[in-house]
Amino acid sequence: MTYYSPDEFRSAIEAIGERRYHSLHPFHRLLHEGELDRGQVQAWALNRFCYQAAIPRKDAALISRTTEVELRREWRKRIIDHDGDLQAGDSGGIARWIALSDAVGLDSDDVRNQRGVLPATTFAVEAYIRFVRERSLLEAVASSLTELFAPDIISERVEGMISTYDFIDDEALAYFGHRLEQAPRDSNFALQYVIEHAVDPDQQQLVLEAVRFKCDVLWAQLDALYHAYVEPGHIPPGAFVPEKQI
Amino acid sequence: MTYYSPDEFRSAIEAIGERRYHSLHPFHRLLHEGELDRGQVQAWALNRFCYQAAIPRKDAALISRTTEVELRREWRKRIIDHDGDLQAGDSGGIARWIALSDAVGLDSDDVRNQRGVLPATTFAVEAYIRFVRERSLLEAVASSLTELFAPDIISERVEGMISTYDFIDDEALAYFGHRLEQAPRDSNFALQYVIEHAVDPDQQQLVLEAVRFKCDVLWAQLDALYHAYVEPGHIPPGAFVPEKQI
Repeated sequence: MTYYSPDEFRSAIEAIGERRYHSLHPFHRLLHEGELDRGQVQAWALNRFCYQAAIPRKDAALISRTTEVELRREWRKRIIDHDGDLQAGDSGGIARWIALSDAVGLDSDDVRNQRGVLPATTFAVEAYIRFVRERSLLEAVASSLTELFAPDIISERVEGMISTYDFIDDEALAYFGHRLEQAPRDSNFALQYVIEHAVDPDQQQLVLEAVRFKCDVLWAQLDALYHAYVEPGHIPPGAFVPEKQI
Repeated sequence: MTYYSPDEFRSAIEAIGERRYHSLHPFHRLLHEGELDRGQVQAWALNRFCYQAAIPRKDAALISRTTEVELRREWRKRIIDHDGDLQAGDSGGIARWIALSDAVGLDSDDVRNQRGVLPATTFAVEAYIRFVRERSLLEAVASSLTELFAPDIISERVEGMISTYDFIDDEALAYFGHRLEQAPRDSNFALQYVIEHAVDPDQQQLVLEAVRFKCDVLWAQLDALYHAYVEPGHIPPGAFVPEKQI
């Protein structure tokens, strides 16, 4: 197996994103180009909430596994980002996602309770949490590295969505504004961490596998949305059914 | 909440199957009616192997959780059914599934190593194992109850597949012949178990929820196959790509 220099290793990680990050998924193209109707955007917001809401459990699982206080301190920011810091006046990313789901016309109680979420979404999200709990700490950190690829997709998404959906405005998309600052901070830290800790070819391969796995987790969520709400539009029993459009 | 008599409880369980069992899924209809091409049947056999191969881990997880020796003895049969009993001349259900995948033209090494399995399949299968590990023993037992609904689908499937696919014969479908005996034996035991152990409305609801969950696990696997290999035919990065048909 190859041993990559730090620069080559970074490139190998980025090459995975170029082929597998969910920005390439047809559902995202439709979302960003404004080709979805309100019901389809609702289905996306509801299912994506399931992912957002799980992130602090995933990050706490990682923190619970390490004796490195620096890693814990750094990683703790991620929990605060999502759960908020009320004293600092920050309601957090999960609350901002609820604001987005309000804006697209979902009932926030349904969203909080994840009523009608696609089973495939839950299965993918829980697979991610389990991965972080059960694999090596190095792989757990590495699975966060898809955030390296996030800033581009977020800019595209925000621009596309505001310009095309009249039920979405800047405020509804506040979640993404915050992520534009948080994601690069977090992913740079995680990238440095894996560069320092993956010291042989086997470990580097585990890191690349973890990034691939995480891409699968994101991709599978959009596959399920596409299948249920775009084409052929087979909504599984018990899942959210959009109201008829007028 | 309602308390069901044993007969009502059984009916409530069966009513879930009538609305949610994967026999109702469009992919199964295509499979049974011979409307899939060889590549699509291969994708089904490969992905379904992932589920079959996981069953003994699931059943062992259940056995590992109970101090009831009778339950353990009874449940142990399921592991033997899948892993085989070489001294008794039985190679087991997993080996029979490999024979089926051979018959449809897959490389058995690829199948055993689950190369190209859809991530969504793995996520669903692992969700099932985790459910059995983490929920109450009653719910773990209840999640097997979808086998109550299996005999009909198996008969349909065997008949439909033999009559329509020239690459499939009786021998290739030996797996299902065995299941026709095993599934009713196992599901009758499990049904008696939940009837005896779900003694209040809350516990009965947990049983019904477990059956619904398991239907979701099965349904999500067919959704993923349909999306990737039927319509719109978007195969996720890294997943099995059938050879072009001649």
